Amino acid sequence: MAPDPQALLDLLRRQLGPAHVLRPQDTDLSAWTVDWRKRYHGRPLALVRPADAQEVAAVMRACAAARVAVVPQGGNTGLVGGGVPDASGQQILLNLGRLNRLRALDADNLTLTAEAGCILQQVQQAAAAAGLLFPLSLAAEGSCTIGGNLASNAGGTAVLRYGNARELCLGLEVVTPQGELWSGLGGLRKDNTGYDLRDLYIGSEGTLGILTAATLKLFPTPAAQTTALAACASLEAAVALLGRARAALGAALTGFEVMNAAALDLVAHHFPALPRPFAGGAWPAWTVLIEQSEAGAPDEPGEAAAARATARFEALLAGALERGTIGDAVVASSLAQSRSLWALREHIPLAQAEAGLNIKHDIALPVSRIPAFVEANARALATACPGSTLICFGHLGDGNLHHNLQAPAGVDAPSFLLRHEAQVNALVHDAVQAAGGSFSAEHGIGALKCGELGRRKDPVALALMRRLKQALDPLNLMNPGRLLPPG
Amino acid sequence: MAPDPQALLDLLRRQLGPAHVLRPQDTDLSAWTVDWRKRYHGRPLALVRPADAQEVAAVMRACAAARVAVVPQGGNTGLVGGGVPDASGQQILLNLGRLNRLRALDADNLTLTAEAGCILQQVQQAAAAAGLLFPLSLAAEGSCTIGGNLASNAGGTAVLRYGNARELCLGLEVVTPQGELWSGLGGLRKDNTGYDLRDLYIGSEGTLGILTAATLKLFPTPAAQTTALAACASLEAAVALLGRARAALGAALTGFEVMNAAALDLVAHHFPALPRPFAGGAWPAWTVLIEQSEAGAPDEPGEAAAARATARFEALLAGALERGTIGDAVVASSLAQSRSLWALREHIPLAQAEAGLNIKHDIALPVSRIPAFVEANARALATACPGSTLICFGHLGDGNLHHNLQAPAGVDAPSFLLRHEAQVNALVHDAVQAAGGSFSAEHGIGALKCGELGRRKDPVALALMRRLKQALDPLNLMNPGRLLPPG
Repeated sequence: MAPDPQALLDLLRRQLGPAHVLRPQDTDLSAWTVDWRKRYHGRPLALVRPADAQEVAAVMRACAAARVAVVPQGGNTGLVGGGVPDASGQQILLNLGRLNRLRALDADNLTLTAEAGCILQQVQQAAAAAGLLFPLSLAAEGSCTIGGNLASNAGGTAVLRYGNARELCLGLEVVTPQGELWSGLGGLRKDNTGYDLRDLYIGSEGTLGILTAATLKLFPTPAAQTTALAACASLEAAVALLGRARAALGAALTGFEVMNAAALDLVAHHFPALPRPFAGGAWPAWTVLIEQSEAGAPDEPGEAAAARATARFEALLAGALERGTIGDAVVASSLAQSRSLWALREHIPLAQAEAGLNIKHDIALPVSRIPAFVEANARALATACPGSTLICFGHLGDGNLHHNLQAPAGVDAPSFLLRHEAQVNALVHDAVQAAGGSFSAEHGIGALKCGELGRRKDPVALALMRRLKQALDPLNLMNPGRLLPPG
Repeated sequence: MAPDPQALLDLLRRQLGPAHVLRPQDTDLSAWTVDWRKRYHGRPLALVRPADAQEVAAVMRACAAARVAVVPQGGNTGLVGGGVPDASGQQILLNLGRLNRLRALDADNLTLTAEAGCILQQVQQAAAAAGLLFPLSLAAEGSCTIGGNLASNAGGTAVLRYGNARELCLGLEVVTPQGELWSGLGGLRKDNTGYDLRDLYIGSEGTLGILTAATLKLFPTPAAQTTALAACASLEAAVALLGRARAALGAALTGFEVMNAAALDLVAHHFPALPRPFAGGAWPAWTVLIEQSEAGAPDEPGEAAAARATARFEALLAGALERGTIGDAVVASSLAQSRSLWALREHIPLAQAEAGLNIKHDIALPVSRIPAFVEANARALATACPGSTLICFGHLGDGNLHHNLQAPAGVDAPSFLLRHEAQVNALVHDAVQAAGGSFSAEHGIGALKCGELGRRKDPVALALMRRLKQALDPLNLMNPGRLLPPG
């Protein structure tokens, strides 16, 4: 059957109401058709905004019958171009924003069921209102959606203790490319009844089906959260400190971030009001931020829990100072001071945005291999791009680094990218691959890294993925051109 | 091509050496062909014992070419008949026992890579020798294998804190039904490069491919483990205690088990030397066992960590006594006393074995629904099988109960099963389904529960599973007749 776009649009208008089927000819859709990093500029046949899972299923049946491709979209905050349509004018852009109901919160079971279009912050707040914690936390939390978080298996700053989005999800509701509805919700922590469909859909970036709701894990709210900063002369020392912190703090260790001196110099330059907590005001080669979350009885004052955590920090850091693992340390003495230490970490992406475009890598390695990798890589980049600056920071506890190369002072950033991006990507990703690492730790593949997936993924794994795609979406209508490279 | 068993056996003998291809005509294979519960008595074409992943791949290619089905087997301790061949004499039984090398331990990365045939205890001991913890722990740990644990997504007593086998695995090596080798090992905690093949194979019970090795997560060894027992008048009270324990102990809470009075009466009857720790010696309606694992600095004495944990236990239990949530409590004052409290829990399955066959259910529910479920169900069973005894115990923190019905005193157990098993299964599983639960929490489907899967699984989910099976094993040669019911 040849596609008849007009007939499809008429059908979708009848299904959803005309207000929820918007054509680019009639409405400025750029908020939905340009990605967050503004690298992809799409043009859909129409933007459709179904109200619930049944309407999503109806849209999918209509599109499957018309052989029209569908691009699902959450908050449009993805970093790899996975959620905007191509420029053909032939794809349906299916935004999940109206599926924004919190369906249930079960405090005894520590679960919350939310529709895909719920904003992450809305979920965090609903948990907090019940005295509980939904720990997924990332820069875009004010606008990204739970559906997008799960479709991309988002990471963030709490993975060390609580895991990626995948580990925070107990059940899913999914609409298949054929328009069937799979009701796989439910708050079970154990369920060995067949293949793990849930985890197959999580991280599939809208290429196998559409997530319409999820049952999420909640946790007791920690009685206190405290933060410390430590100065390390090398990444070896930071890895040694991580080992001691894991043993001494156990699961109370909820954050272990590193930042190189160049990253914090950039922050200090663009945000001079932020603190310079170490003696002398200079940044060490590597600054480690450690966060503890301390449990406490519901009736215990938060100060008592904070005092316990602070005492543990002081013992850990005194021992590390004595051994020479660290050169200096600061333990936050109040919540405000904790926040100001986190602000240093959180301002790195903002400072980079101020400094202009750079060549970004989102890589993961076994923690044990990170020091040698970063050292060799920094040398190779200094040779390949003399004068460039390596901004290196991230979640050392998860083996995940953001590793971004900035143009030399005085060099125009866009032309630096044009000239060096392919070469630098190849250099860094070759080294990552040789060290058994991942070239996409938490951002996913989308359109941006399809080619890398084709070049770098184990060929048997790639062939298995193609068989799965073919099995679940034989017409290749779900987010085509994303995740899997052309076969 | 018609199967030529003789030609296949000749080829396998050349590939593996004649000592590793054993026919039932020549050798007593009952240790491999009868399942642990002795419900399935298989007869294979041959038992083959490859030495490594390459030999597994060669066996798979030979069997695929000959169109002969393959049943992978680990330690043969499964409870659902998933690892023994059928009685046709036409299936190859592929035992992974010779793949028993520990390939690598990376202390800084907290990972261990083990071949599929490694015994769970061997992995636990290798971690302990490096001062680390591999937390998967279950009754069969002295003979079950890592490959079997992952193929069945095993649970056990540490799931509350550390997750099921799935959550403890970072990477896999897999031989496909076509004899390709996918090398997906590696110790990455974040890797968003394509579909989650790992979790699809985990729990697939040998029906999609053969796990040959895995990279597993390790943890710092707790500085102290302490145990307490509390007496609850109802499951509602036990759920309330769980909520307070989760908040007060945080991730230090590593175990929360319940046992009904009938279960502990049975233990006391068959093992009279075990303790009766509550005042008066009688068992309360529900006994809760709580375990804490306390972190500590590597140089801190274990006693100091134990004292902290004990103080937290005492505060938690004093508050619960005051509120009337519990009626009595015992905190272990030594490691030996902790072990003797755990022994009560661990002797329930042994006491049941002494008491003879019973009708077993391995169910999971949202924790919040467990009290009403158990109460209604106990009433229904008392009506359906007057005089029978409900032995109910399990991992309340995970919502997972072992819920077993024992014949009335004086009634022959096998004839009780023959008469009541189908009816009782239907009654219990209907109620589980109505409460949004699972009829197989941690034991899997295998041959035993295929029919239940066909009757009770969401039909869309079942159709999706069939598409995945067809995509990865189009000839249906991998463990046919297991997990998926006939289509």
